[in-house]
Amino acid sequence: MTPLHPGLFVSFEGPEGAGKSTQLARLAARLDTHGTPHRLTREPGGTPLGTRVREVLLDPALTIDPLPEFLLYSASRAQLVANVIRPALNRGEVVVCDRYADSSLAYQGAGRGLPVNLLREITLAATDGLTPDLTVLLDLDPAVGLERAARRGQPDRLEQADLDFHRRVRAGFLHLAEQTPARFLVLDATRTPDDLSDTIWQAVQAQLP
Amino acid sequence: MTPLHPGLFVSFEGPEGAGKSTQLARLAARLDTHGTPHRLTREPGGTPLGTRVREVLLDPALTIDPLPEFLLYSASRAQLVANVIRPALNRGEVVVCDRYADSSLAYQGAGRGLPVNLLREITLAATDGLTPDLTVLLDLDPAVGLERAARRGQPDRLEQADLDFHRRVRAGFLHLAEQTPARFLVLDATRTPDDLSDTIWQAVQAQLP
Repeated sequence: MTPLHPGLFVSFEGPEGAGKSTQLARLAARLDTHGTPHRLTREPGGTPLGTRVREVLLDPALTIDPLPEFLLYSASRAQLVANVIRPALNRGEVVVCDRYADSSLAYQGAGRGLPVNLLREITLAATDGLTPDLTVLLDLDPAVGLERAARRGQPDRLEQADLDFHRRVRAGFLHLAEQTPARFLVLDATRTPDDLSDTIWQAVQAQLP
Repeated sequence: MTPLHPGLFVSFEGPEGAGKSTQLARLAARLDTHGTPHRLTREPGGTPLGTRVREVLLDPALTIDPLPEFLLYSASRAQLVANVIRPALNRGEVVVCDRYADSSLAYQGAGRGLPVNLLREITLAATDGLTPDLTVLLDLDPAVGLERAARRGQPDRLEQADLDFHRRVRAGFLHLAEQTPARFLVLDATRTPDDLSDTIWQAVQAQLP
């Protein structure tokens, strides 16, 4: 579904506490050193609209049902793809995104039980069919991930959800990786940060424009 | 598509400046006098989530593309239907809603040019198939409506859009009314408020639970 573009689109997926932020920063630093034009962004967020939607989604005081939750993520995603990701890819840049559509399929589909066909159809519209060229999945046992996240301070709304939910999300991510193995780099998030960033850099470098 | 419920679901549609607020208040007053339990609500809004989404949608400082705009309206709608409208209808109440799904089809479909099939499909999911029993369309020439709205103060983001857009929206509303004439009460919004509220009350009274 991905129309050809001269850039490279890399997404990072995985639960809270898997070390995504660390690895995103390290990849950005490597791309800097390598002199490769790149754009670091995230979901939800990445645009003025996305930032506002992010505040709503992560507000622990709000009750949000699964479908409206998914629609809010999709709204942020549609704005981000059209205004940030596509233009950067068309300029030949490397776009590195902290979460993308796989998160919706894992969290709202596998986790919250929304019908996957509906999620896929709305996602196809919201992204205009844009899928990542490479998705780094930092896989982690939910019990370990929640413990790591809690150590970093106040848990947000997602982190408060129960362990069973996070187990379904993990299975959802792994199922997506099995369905499209060529796109996914599945890594054990308990490996050392140095080891992980070396492996990620090798995979990115092999696909650099 | 509407599952049976013991209540009555009335929506008000039409452009800014057509007098929806006046007629909504008058209908609520008549229902009060009549002793009919009712719930007045609006889109976007009507729930804590919807209120936050409304602030985002009506913020003139934000750039929002047509599809994310529609997805935000749909998120507010899904939360409102599940948590406010359905429960009230199941209790046998009259629900009076200031705008509903027809607004999305008119504004984001006819007005902004999004594919109507996509909008209908997402709306079906967001509303779980709930359509109004009666839709009052206050029809008005866009030039007159914009002038009326401007007289009331600072125009919001929708009101700043151009006249052609509002002409497409009007045509969209009228097309919806032609497609489902049994549901729509199309009224010339230049009639006097008293005359309009009498006609609306007759139509509502005829369908009261």
